[in-house]
Amino acid sequence: MTDNAVRCEAGAARHRFALRIYWEDTDAGGIVYYANYLKFMERARTDLVQRAGVDQRRLLRDDGLMFPVKRCDIEYLRPACLEDEVIVETAVRKVGGASIDLAQDVLRQDELLTKAHVRLACIDRDGRPRRLPVQVKHAFAGMAGGEGSS
Amino acid sequence: MTDNAVRCEAGAARHRFALRIYWEDTDAGGIVYYANYLKFMERARTDLVQRAGVDQRRLLRDDGLMFPVKRCDIEYLRPACLEDEVIVETAVRKVGGASIDLAQDVLRQDELLTKAHVRLACIDRDGRPRRLPVQVKHAFAGMAGGEGSS
Amino acid sequence: MTDNAVRCEAGAARHRFALRIYWEDTDAGGIVYYANYLKFMERARTDLVQRAGVDQRRLLRDDGLMFPVKRCDIEYLRPACLEDEVIVETAVRKVGGASIDLAQDVLRQDELLTKAHVRLACIDRDGRPRRLPVQVKHAFAGMAGGEGSS
Amino acid sequence: MTDNAVRCEAGAARHRFALRIYWEDTDAGGIVYYANYLKFMERARTDLVQRAGVDQRRLLRDDGLMFPVKRCDIEYLRPACLEDEVIVETAVRKVGGASIDLAQDVLRQDELLTKAHVRLACIDRDGRPRRLPVQVKHAFAGMAGGEGSS
Repeated sequence: MTDNAVRCEAGAARHRFALRIYWEDTDAGGIVYYANYLKFMERARTDLVQRAGVDQRRLLRDDGLMFPVKRCDIEYLRPACLEDEVIVETAVRKVGGASIDLAQDVLRQDELLTKAHVRLACIDRDGRPRRLPVQVKHAFAGMAGGEGSS
Repeated sequence: MTDNAVRCEAGAARHRFALRIYWEDTDAGGIVYYANYLKFMERARTDLVQRAGVDQRRLLRDDGLMFPVKRCDIEYLRPACLEDEVIVETAVRKVGGASIDLAQDVLRQDELLTKAHVRLACIDRDGRPRRLPVQVKHAFAGMAGGEGSS
Repeated sequence: MTDNAVRCEAGAARHRFALRIYWEDTDAGGIVYYANYLKFMERARTDLVQRAGVDQRRLLRDDGLMFPVKRCDIEYLRPACLEDEVIVETAVRKVGGASIDLAQDVLRQDELLTKAHVRLACIDRDGRPRRLPVQVKHAFAGMAGGEGSS
Repeated sequence: MTDNAVRCEAGAARHRFALRIYWEDTDAGGIVYYANYLKFMERARTDLVQRAGVDQRRLLRDDGLMFPVKRCDIEYLRPACLEDEVIVETAVRKVGGASIDLAQDVLRQDELLTKAHVRLACIDRDGRPRRLPVQVKHAFAGMAGGEGSS
């Protein structure tokens, strides 16, 4: 994972979010249950928009807007285990008018565990596609300065 | 668990709901994660009110009513494991004006795994206590004919 | 959804697994949380191998074998909601020596909600790749050309 | 919540653990799903023993020891919502030879959301009761009279 370290040092725009693995995250195989990595990636996205000053709760309550995942392509390389500390690294690949493409990796120190491409959309309470609010767009576009490969 | 078999044969009012344990339910200890029994008990309650003709979805959408758990006292006796088929057995202990008391056991065949007492309330979208709708009250009261101890 | 209906009528080998949406599956957006569709797909895979006589629990305990997902590409088309009954439809795309490729759709009646491609591998307790046990291979291969409805 | 504030000021030994509410924690009622508070309480217990130098992972792997919840009595007073930051406050009530009794509250600032009593036991891989390892006993006993920093 020298690669990852280099990408960070080079200042490519990446959001890093740390979390710990608890019993609730594991399964009888002794490792993190595969669906739970999607929870970790969503926590990182929430943190990212929060830090950019976006209030998802208010957007939901006042404007009825939500930002559901439209597609998620995830590759599982190595498992995370109980009490591991992992990092979700998020890079913006593309910010469109009504969708956002992200690369989200989960790492344990410099070891890549999962690798995902995620597309978010914007919808209203009736599920109709809506243009992204400017603040949400900015939250992600502000990060898109890096080369964002993944 | 002869006791349980007898209670059933005697016609005491009990709702029985079967479910299977999947990987998602287990943890690295190789057994069902302790919080997940509360999910199983909630599935059984949903099934119970559905069978009584109550449409929780409509009550939420049209009347803003929900039936949250106000307290849950649960005892863990033996663990359920991957691929076990378990039964949630629900008995009504008391139907009040604004709350319902249930006894909910989880069993694997005739073996008692967990034992819980659950109190449900009725609230509106603002969290204010409301009287139970008649149909919900009837759904549970219809069951309360048995002696229902547990 | 004519497409899907046609595929079924044409006798393509598909495993169908029904499940209900409970409160635990939903989120504050009022719809099923995106990670939970992966749980549904895993329940269907467990049901599929169980019906083929494979005992995952024994394989884990005696041989230390697990069948983790190596990749999952999922597209979210429409959301499932509280109390919906949905069907997970699984078709085998390819059975290799050490991996299995599946197509898994989640439908509400004839409406396609999510669409996924899933690759399973076989590993031992140390995470080393292993060849698929013959019985597991047969469980899936039997579907790849057969009529396989369930 | 003057009560709680007072207890803190009085220097009673309490472990405090902060966490944030994500979409995964909520349900279609717009609030945290009731089973998930048990996850929060377990995260706090893991943090508590970790800080005391106990390695649960090693105890599981080398000695086959686990510390399951034997009973949990939880009262739900007010709901937590999306993006809330909550605190799990843990106090030791009693450390016995083979079990530990805890009081675990979940608070949002000075507002008490849930209130629980939890009993932990020690078992081996076959589910047989075992005496608590000295280090685990000390982790909790150290709190029972200490000043409870976090």
